[in-house]
Amino acid sequence: MKGSDHQTTRRTSRKEGESMLTPEILAALRAAVGEEWCLTSKADLMAYSYDATPLYQRLPDAVVLPRTTEEVAAVLQIAHAHRIPVFTRGAGTNLAAGTVPAGGGIVLSLNRMNRILEIDQENLTATAEAGVITAELHKAVEAVGLFYPPDPGSMTSSTLGGNVMESAGGLRGLKYGVTKDYVMGLTAVTADGRIFRAGGKNVKDVAGYDLVKLICGSEGTLCVVTEVILKLLPMPEAKRTALAVFHDMEAAARTVSRIIAARIIPCTLEFMDNGTIRAVEDYVHLGLPTDAAALLLIQQDGPASVCDADIQRIAQICREEGATRVEHASDPAEQDRLMQARRFALSALARRRPTTILEDATVPRSQIAPMVAEIQRIAQKYDLDICTFGHAGDGNLHPTCMTDERNKEEIQRVEQAFAEIFAAALELGGTITGEHGVGEAKSPYLEWKVGPVGIELMKNIKKAFDPHGILNPGKLFAGETRKRVVVRQ
Amino acid sequence: MKGSDHQTTRRTSRKEGESMLTPEILAALRAAVGEEWCLTSKADLMAYSYDATPLYQRLPDAVVLPRTTEEVAAVLQIAHAHRIPVFTRGAGTNLAAGTVPAGGGIVLSLNRMNRILEIDQENLTATAEAGVITAELHKAVEAVGLFYPPDPGSMTSSTLGGNVMESAGGLRGLKYGVTKDYVMGLTAVTADGRIFRAGGKNVKDVAGYDLVKLICGSEGTLCVVTEVILKLLPMPEAKRTALAVFHDMEAAARTVSRIIAARIIPCTLEFMDNGTIRAVEDYVHLGLPTDAAALLLIQQDGPASVCDADIQRIAQICREEGATRVEHASDPAEQDRLMQARRFALSALARRRPTTILEDATVPRSQIAPMVAEIQRIAQKYDLDICTFGHAGDGNLHPTCMTDERNKEEIQRVEQAFAEIFAAALELGGTITGEHGVGEAKSPYLEWKVGPVGIELMKNIKKAFDPHGILNPGKLFAGETRKRVVVRQ
Repeated sequence: MKGSDHQTTRRTSRKEGESMLTPEILAALRAAVGEEWCLTSKADLMAYSYDATPLYQRLPDAVVLPRTTEEVAAVLQIAHAHRIPVFTRGAGTNLAAGTVPAGGGIVLSLNRMNRILEIDQENLTATAEAGVITAELHKAVEAVGLFYPPDPGSMTSSTLGGNVMESAGGLRGLKYGVTKDYVMGLTAVTADGRIFRAGGKNVKDVAGYDLVKLICGSEGTLCVVTEVILKLLPMPEAKRTALAVFHDMEAAARTVSRIIAARIIPCTLEFMDNGTIRAVEDYVHLGLPTDAAALLLIQQDGPASVCDADIQRIAQICREEGATRVEHASDPAEQDRLMQARRFALSALARRRPTTILEDATVPRSQIAPMVAEIQRIAQKYDLDICTFGHAGDGNLHPTCMTDERNKEEIQRVEQAFAEIFAAALELGGTITGEHGVGEAKSPYLEWKVGPVGIELMKNIKKAFDPHGILNPGKLFAGETRKRVVVRQ
Repeated sequence: MKGSDHQTTRRTSRKEGESMLTPEILAALRAAVGEEWCLTSKADLMAYSYDATPLYQRLPDAVVLPRTTEEVAAVLQIAHAHRIPVFTRGAGTNLAAGTVPAGGGIVLSLNRMNRILEIDQENLTATAEAGVITAELHKAVEAVGLFYPPDPGSMTSSTLGGNVMESAGGLRGLKYGVTKDYVMGLTAVTADGRIFRAGGKNVKDVAGYDLVKLICGSEGTLCVVTEVILKLLPMPEAKRTALAVFHDMEAAARTVSRIIAARIIPCTLEFMDNGTIRAVEDYVHLGLPTDAAALLLIQQDGPASVCDADIQRIAQICREEGATRVEHASDPAEQDRLMQARRFALSALARRRPTTILEDATVPRSQIAPMVAEIQRIAQKYDLDICTFGHAGDGNLHPTCMTDERNKEEIQRVEQAFAEIFAAALELGGTITGEHGVGEAKSPYLEWKVGPVGIELMKNIKKAFDPHGILNPGKLFAGETRKRVVVRQ
């Protein structure tokens, strides 16, 4: 990541390398959060200069780690008074350069705000600080028989605040929706450092514009969320898993449609194409047929009798549509074994070449087969190695390109290919990002999806919350240069 | 309603009674929608001068009924150019004066845009124009085995567009959420007459701010929605109903909590207090015990075996908590009979006195018992006849005051009582409106819920969409005068 050529964009006219933070501002920040929680050493600044999106790296001038909402407010009051950019982050697992500094400014880490404040079993809500790790919340609510469905791939390290800011998805989106569907209320701080609350524990609440849902997915550009009230569900009683192998992509896609047409909504309906199957088999030797065109991995949860009936019916549909192999399991260990193929998909692909570019172009579920065909056509056209896996049930695909970022010419072809993949997704009624967010990396494509009126309205909303543009500048609405999400291995 | 003293508020300095519409503007409107769909006769203006909220009535200058999104855009271009207020409406069933003109201006009726454009069984979506009546959509999707859960009380006359603008609720909110949870995409027209689309058929989409959810519940103040893409579910296989009578309000509330604690989420969990029970019994003679403190009406839907198990368990919990009578039914006719008590609640109460004031203060589910006690205390304090029924499962109560609007002194007490009821709901972590919207009637109370920062952000959002304030002026952010929702019988 070092030596990246994206390192120099600065938003102010100050001299290159010069800090935006005067000694007075630094002293104020130290007073706000405590001496030891305001970091300025080169090593510390380096640690917060990137997120999970390689190729993007820029140093901030300081990193602050407040412990309370009031400390966050104090930091923002200082930043606002001096028009210093603030880059809020949780675990930094973002894949769209959404938490990379723009060069200088303050990184505001919420990792110390990591308390689960309440699990309210009567109202089925959890109240937690933004820095709580998602998987920790899962554990805490599951311990009392409750269920928080959002399960982004990053959940063992990503934070609730990050999930909320990206409206993170996961494997259970088809049946359970995404993070946004579970955020009922929040405590936040405005760009100028005022604390406000929106929403609450009410299942129904139509008092004014829905600030909660607007802030979800706003990628740190509207305000800083410090605390969330999340909706919980009763833990489903049972779970069943099926794995089906197809010699024909169309048949796999037809199977997805027929499961839905049978009025079954599985909790998970994952897909892997031939290239991904081969990579996984090569890596972990599960005995998958390497000539298979597609693999579907299907899970259902709910009352045991319903799960059993659903998974039997699903297996039957798979066979009717020509699956060459169908396994299903109710035993947890056996279910785990079936899930392995999907779990190893990204790591298996990433072994092949130095750089892995992971995208999340998404289409309506009915368009999966044409979209996969388009991806294959585009890969051939640009002579690239692109495999696809992802959430077939909700149309959220992960076309993944194995490349080498040192090969500038190839990277250019990769960028052209992905631009074409986004365009293809949009032509099929899809979107440029299903769950990773726009960030800096996909900002040149946002207008493709939302149109000029959409961009104008969104820019106006940004101004409504942050008139001086100090919150996460350079994200969502950045310039026109194409840059890609690159997961370096 | 005629002779109301709320009829004279005008927003411009033009002479009282003088039209805002010059002959040139009227000619342009006629050209935009067709001569016969631009109404200006006194009788027509009267017909669109009020909604379901009596005491509020003001004449518009014209009523236009466009047939297409393009015609809506043309109307808004004209209105915007001349800064003429536009009051968009569907069926006018609003209970918060949300669709009453501010005096003069254009009423934009979307009733002619009433086509269901598509039911997409692969993606489980329905696409429909804003003027489609909600119950018509129910029928159309149910005919193919699909399910659109939102079921506001007004659904046999209210329109999808109106439901979206209010994020309407209903009896199934506890399990299925509200209108907002089912809106995936929309076509809309900006205040200055530009058409845009937001969202789509993608289950996951994080491309920019969520305009769809922000526009849902925006009460006609941000843009005009002409078409919606709605999420559908498979139709639940079966339904079961139980009715339980309690001699003690606390026991009924405990029962609600215990049902949830048993990890059962019924689709409907309705409540009636003693006054409502007596009114219903007096009206339709169902054999309800008139000394009962509370009645719970509970429905579960889903696979038959699960419904059966759930409703048996629910009946058992009711008995354990001291219900004096528990009936449950699986036969549809028998279920209908049990539902009657709830269905007649409002009509039964409304017979008692000339004027019925229906509110929708909402609290977290765990606070139902204290909230009902507060309502009873406040009714006594102000010497008023207030009964409460509503959606116990989601804390959405309908305290209902039987009064006489001709008695100015009593109406003053009613207003004081409801202000106190709102304050009590907020103290219990609730909200001023669970499903009716803020409109004009509850605008003096919005800040009580969202605070000064919330109001400021909302006003900024309003400006972001409608800088000249031509869309439904006087709603959400109106002055400080207290006015109440009055359903005249």
